[in-house]
Amino acid sequence: MNAVEIIQRKRDGGALSAEQIRWVIGEYAADRIPDYQMSALLMAVFKVGLDAAELAAWVDAMLHSGDVLDFSHVAAPKVDKHSTGGVGDKVSLPLGPMVAACGVAVPMMSGRGLGHTGGTLDKLETIPGFRTALDPPEFRALLARTGLVLAGQSETLVPADRRLYALRDATGTVESIPLISSSIMSKKLAEGLDGLVLDVKVGRGAFMKHPEESRTLAETMVGIGRSYGTPVRALLTDMNQPLGAEVGNACEVVESVEVLRGGGPADLVEVTYRLGEEMLVLGGVAADRAAARARLQGAVASGAAFEKLVEVVEAQGGDPAVIHNPSLLPVAPHHHEVPAARSGYLTRCDALDLGVAAMRLGAGRERKEDAIDPGVGLRVLAKVGDPVEKGQPLVRLAWADSRRLAQALPLVERALEIGEERVAPPPLIHGEVS
Amino acid sequence: MNAVEIIQRKRDGGALSAEQIRWVIGEYAADRIPDYQMSALLMAVFKVGLDAAELAAWVDAMLHSGDVLDFSHVAAPKVDKHSTGGVGDKVSLPLGPMVAACGVAVPMMSGRGLGHTGGTLDKLETIPGFRTALDPPEFRALLARTGLVLAGQSETLVPADRRLYALRDATGTVESIPLISSSIMSKKLAEGLDGLVLDVKVGRGAFMKHPEESRTLAETMVGIGRSYGTPVRALLTDMNQPLGAEVGNACEVVESVEVLRGGGPADLVEVTYRLGEEMLVLGGVAADRAAARARLQGAVASGAAFEKLVEVVEAQGGDPAVIHNPSLLPVAPHHHEVPAARSGYLTRCDALDLGVAAMRLGAGRERKEDAIDPGVGLRVLAKVGDPVEKGQPLVRLAWADSRRLAQALPLVERALEIGEERVAPPPLIHGEVS
Repeated sequence: MNAVEIIQRKRDGGALSAEQIRWVIGEYAADRIPDYQMSALLMAVFKVGLDAAELAAWVDAMLHSGDVLDFSHVAAPKVDKHSTGGVGDKVSLPLGPMVAACGVAVPMMSGRGLGHTGGTLDKLETIPGFRTALDPPEFRALLARTGLVLAGQSETLVPADRRLYALRDATGTVESIPLISSSIMSKKLAEGLDGLVLDVKVGRGAFMKHPEESRTLAETMVGIGRSYGTPVRALLTDMNQPLGAEVGNACEVVESVEVLRGGGPADLVEVTYRLGEEMLVLGGVAADRAAARARLQGAVASGAAFEKLVEVVEAQGGDPAVIHNPSLLPVAPHHHEVPAARSGYLTRCDALDLGVAAMRLGAGRERKEDAIDPGVGLRVLAKVGDPVEKGQPLVRLAWADSRRLAQALPLVERALEIGEERVAPPPLIHGEVS
Repeated sequence: MNAVEIIQRKRDGGALSAEQIRWVIGEYAADRIPDYQMSALLMAVFKVGLDAAELAAWVDAMLHSGDVLDFSHVAAPKVDKHSTGGVGDKVSLPLGPMVAACGVAVPMMSGRGLGHTGGTLDKLETIPGFRTALDPPEFRALLARTGLVLAGQSETLVPADRRLYALRDATGTVESIPLISSSIMSKKLAEGLDGLVLDVKVGRGAFMKHPEESRTLAETMVGIGRSYGTPVRALLTDMNQPLGAEVGNACEVVESVEVLRGGGPADLVEVTYRLGEEMLVLGGVAADRAAARARLQGAVASGAAFEKLVEVVEAQGGDPAVIHNPSLLPVAPHHHEVPAARSGYLTRCDALDLGVAAMRLGAGRERKEDAIDPGVGLRVLAKVGDPVEKGQPLVRLAWADSRRLAQALPLVERALEIGEERVAPPPLIHGEVS
């Protein structure tokens, strides 16, 4: 085996053998292939692609660069959800407890936010005391006890991906469907799941801007699941405007609790239920979507879903008082409202601009080492298609630093557009892949 | 300026600005851009290419990574020749003295051989005492004195190319026409020439196997010369079979001296004269090719060309006795002849196989750190199209180590093919580009 020959073969459009892929990923993970050879191979993969067999081998090699989890000690079916990330996407927080309350175990491993999309771990850590860094024995014990764990990925889970992702980030090889899907799927398949539901975002605030790209990404990931023998279903959901109203960290926990209490914005509620339906069906605890929705609604109505979140927060060291009384969560000292410049209909409420604005306020990281301010953020008070009156507040910013506010405001103003004619809101669900 | 943005732009098929190219090459040469980013950019260039303006900027940036030579103290026109490398290609050795004897100064900077093609420096160093490592003041003084210097490139000439070449070699990004041509042309244009003649080899033993690729390479390099204001002409010459008879190091010096004495194999003589014609015309010392050939023939017939080689060898510390009496040059202790397996016509005499065979004998390097045996090599005794009799020797090997002989012989046997029908010899000159 020779790294240069492997690079040349891929560069010239050839398919790599499973053996070559296993070797190159293994040697890179073991530090015996240097970054400069791997980055040339990644660029060749970026330009040429990977076929289904190569992709299966690539994911398998990544997956076996570290531990593969085994949750067979948990009798319940294990199903997780992964989102490609979006602005205001706090779905994991209400979804995990709802699904776990219906008898499906959810070993949810999440990441931190980088750029304009928030990270589930950052949101959870606004709960005082909540620990997201769990060692494998504790993770296993908690999953058996509560049926839901909300944690970060352990260091031993797909270590090759950590190095590859940092290298891709520095070498212009991030936006590649085979590389994105193998990165996501290797981590999820290493969780030892019985099923996986993917929330692939589409639109301005999503990683993939075009519906066709999102569909290709979804199909690629579902195909990897198939080749690995794990059932995977994907929903393509809208990310042209933020999901729900709140964009930030603590404020997204507040909104998540509202959903578990039976309230919350309609779009967030609908996406959460749709993903939950798929998880319950995949987990085999509901025969079809209608039955699944009825169970999820029941778990919310009975308070079981809310109680599941309280139980998990307590189990992971967090203070359950803030779940019972979300006003105890951190909140920025100042507020600023952006009013409608004229009367008409909201025609644009740009997720990307609003996500970057929230990041500028301090809710997200421009660089990995940046700290997050848990209390800052923004609330979107109108959605595309809504009638608005001149002067009516459209976005409410919670801010702590006036310089940061000054950086965020122009983006918020740019994000909003009012027209004379009503436009139809974008569809919430763009499609599904299974 | 940001390396990732530059990589992404090239990756996505965009053209880089001259400023971006200057920055990325300069920062890499200054060690402020890591190898892993440069290798990703090189792979993007490999897949996407560089347009004429990008290529001009790339060459200019490379060129200015080190010293740009100025030979304005030499009154004569300065013209050099570059060959893309081939088996038995010793043309520089007779050509330099012939052209210098006609009044064109030749500041020839050559490289060492790697792989199956020999290097001019390795051949020159078989002359006892001959020094190819000259510092810039000595190079300048010798060029003024003799009108011909045969030396290696100084460390300060295009240092970016040395690093880039090593990186390309390790990352599968060698065989790219823009990268090959910018590497060659940056080094040649840094010599401060009035003109440059390129010998672009075509065929089995050449770097470029296909005539169209060779033509594209030649056109690209001629275009770079044009954008830089330096007249460049290229000949496409055959490398399906070795050039001349001798393949090795000392034995190629012997054959070169034969050409300067008015003898030598017809193909080697013709390629040498054709390149010399172009150099004299570019240097402005002959009005056309016919006049140039007459001057070159005169320089050989008068002994002036031979005396020029003697003068240069002495000036660079070599023993001129070996030029007067080439049998004093090193020669391997043993010989082995490969006979014709049957009578017929030689239909194949494969330059690549014979080049690798000579390397196996010890005439070339598989790795940069390998030492060369000056006395080993092989002599090709028949050319494609020649009638041969069963048992007649076709190749004569000069060897020193029986294990190496055993590795070389199967390649020699594979290189030769005898058919019943005579085939036409391949054309010596496949075309020209100016």
